[in-house]
Formats: sequence, C-alpha cells, structure tokens
Amino acid sequence: FPLRYERDPSAIYAASFATVRAEARLERFPPGLQALAIRVIHACGMVEVADRLAFSAGAFEAGRAALEAGAPVLCDCRMVAAGIIPGRLPAGNEVITSIAEETVPERARAIGNTRSAAAVELWGDRLEGAVVAIGNAPTALFHLLELLDQGWPRPALILGFPVGFVGAAESKAALAANPRGCEFVALRGRRGGSAMASAAVNALAAGLPEERR
Amino acid sequence: FPLRYERDPSAIYAASFATVRAEARLERFPPGLQALAIRVIHACGMVEVADRLAFSAGAFEAGRAALEAGAPVLCDCRMVAAGIIPGRLPAGNEVITSIAEETVPERARAIGNTRSAAAVELWGDRLEGAVVAIGNAPTALFHLLELLDQGWPRPALILGFPVGFVGAAESKAALAANPRGCEFVALRGRRGGSAMASAAVNALAAGLPEERR
Repeated sequence: FPLRYERDPSAIYAASFATVRAEARLERFPPGLQALAIRVIHACGMVEVADRLAFSAGAFEAGRAALEAGAPVLCDCRMVAAGIIPGRLPAGNEVITSIAEETVPERARAIGNTRSAAAVELWGDRLEGAVVAIGNAPTALFHLLELLDQGWPRPALILGFPVGFVGAAESKAALAANPRGCEFVALRGRRGGSAMASAAVNALAAGLPEERR
Repeated sequence: FPLRYERDPSAIYAASFATVRAEARLERFPPGLQALAIRVIHACGMVEVADRLAFSAGAFEAGRAALEAGAPVLCDCRMVAAGIIPGRLPAGNEVITSIAEETVPERARAIGNTRSAAAVELWGDRLEGAVVAIGNAPTALFHLLELLDQGWPRPALILGFPVGFVGAAESKAALAANPRGCEFVALRGRRGGSAMASAAVNALAAGLPEERR
C-alpha cells in the first residue's frame, strides 16, 4: 500500500495558501495584515482564528519598517525564536530571548512575578523601536504593559499571542484595549502560541513569497 | 490603572490544570495518557482537542519506558526540540533534530520529497526504540511511515502532531489506522503543532509535577 501524498514543497505551499484564502474571512485586513493573518492561520491549521485577530491599523507597516531599520526581535521564549526564519529577516536582525539568563530566577523572586515576566525587564534599552513577539506567557505581556505604563521605552510593534487558561485572554484584551496607543496584533481568547508568534514575525519579514512561486 | 493578574507560577499552573480538568472530556484516557492530554491542552488553550486524540493503549508506557532506558527524542523541527524541558528527561536523553544538516537539501532532491522528509532518513539507526515527535511537517510523518513499511527500525512511540491544510489530517489518519502495530498518539485533523508535540514529550518525561505542588 504505497502512501499517496504531495511531496513538492511549492505545491504544498500553494495548496495550503489557496485553502486558507478559500476558507478564511480576510476582507477586513489591510494587505500587509492579510499576509500576516494567512501565515498565522497556516501555522495553526485553523482558518477561524482570522475572526479573532485584533490589530492597530498601522501594525504591519510599523513592524516592517522597524525590521528594515535593523530593530531586534524580542521573544518571550525559545520556541518563538526557533520558529523565526533568520534568512528572511531584512537586516540580519538580532533575535533575542532572555528567559534563560542566569539573573532571571532571582529577579523573578525580587519582583514577585514569573520568570517570563522578569525576563522582559532584561530587554531594557533594546525595547525602544523593537518588534516584541510573545507566544507563550501571559505574564510576559502583562508585565510589558505595566513597564510601558511606567514609562519604559516603547517598542515599534507588539505581537501578542500568549496561550492558555490563566491570563492569556485577559492580557491580550489589555493589549487590544490599547490606552497606550501602541501598534499591536493580538489573537483574542485562549488560543495562541509560539508558532503563531513566529509566523507573524516571518510575515513582517517576508510576506508570502511561497505563494508567488 | 494597575493591571490585576496572577503572578505566582504555582497558582497559575494549578488554576490552568483545574480549568482543563473541569472542561475537558478526559474519562476515556488511561492515567498516563490523561496527563499527556492535559499537557497538550495546556499548550494550545483548547480543551476540545481531547476529543480528537487518537492513541494506542500502551502508548504512554512505551514512551516512558523508552525515555527511562535512555532513548533519544527525534524531532522534525527545531521548535519541537526547543519546547522540550531538558531537566525533565529521565536519563539525560538526547534531543535530535536533523532538518538543518547540510546534506538534507541534496537528499530531498534525490528522493523527490521535502527537506522535512529527507531529514527523517538521517535518523537512521537512532530510530530503533526512539521517541519520535513530529510537530510540523506532514511529509515527515508520511515518509517515516513509508520507511517503516520498507523495514526500517521501529521507534518505541510516534507522537503525531503535524499541522496544516495539506497532508496533516491524512498523515495522522495513516498513523492512527496503524496497520504497522506501532505505539502512537496523534491529534486527528488539521490542528497540531510543535507546542503540542513538545508538551507530549514533557508529559512522558515528567507527568504533571506542577499539579502536585
């Protein structure tokens, strides 16, 4: 019983993106964000997440311009960093994850928060004009918003994809309410994850070149 | 407006797992697989994936025994490897990803398949008794099944979580139909991803220690 399946990468991408375009509601997105939505859907296999994406109107252009200007990508966990395609980044941009730094556990105890939240503080002056990609920890997103409210430097764009049952929906709602006037993209609700956050960064970096082959 | 949210990691885990237990249908799983299902749900924020998990009855014990015996974990992509908690692995087990090996592109051309599929061939004699974790590429799972049908060494357990619109559902159905008599866990349908695959490995490695704190 030989297995029959598509083995050609270009054909796989073409069929995948065609299915996403046929099934997802993409009309409400400006062009750049449409590519971002398609990549996020492609990463999770769920066309309906398009309906739960919140965003600021200039999010794609802000993130794209930041990457072209050489801004770093700040990630809350190693999985997000691992999903970013380095060759697609337009300016050899640094991809930074601070969670494994040795000062993080002590800092977490000192601030009475998680290690994911403590790691955000290590971004320090790299935060100014950066692209932030949060794909795991609600506390990282919550604490970033707290730091911004305290006057910390502002990133160019916040990609909010923390996942789970405690704080994920709430932290993304706090981002999307946007009293801070930040550029952002966020997937409302419990769903999210590092693959979606990486996909959003890859969309900023390169759009959908596979579709044009 | 100070943000109010849970900052204590133990409390976050406890509340998360309590929500999963309250909302997910877990009755049909044997004990080990119940822990695996809870971790997979925790990784994706969707309690309903429990209803789509296919498995062989001895999957958990086979994977656990393999890890205790020092078996390697073979991953189809870097994100799966990045999500595995090394300190939880019971025997300092190797976590192997072959996708970035320099021979992979040439091998992909030679076999007329994707790089993900070609990388599976590099697992070679590490496959015997290993835990395989596929969280991205349907072609990696399809090609693994083809190689097994050709008589390649058998892994102890296959964790099938490829994601997407082309081949993901089909490859997992081929795994779950199980004419090969392999031990397996697979999430039926388009959904899947590296976070779920890593979560399944972490469950084999350690169960749910956070819940017992």
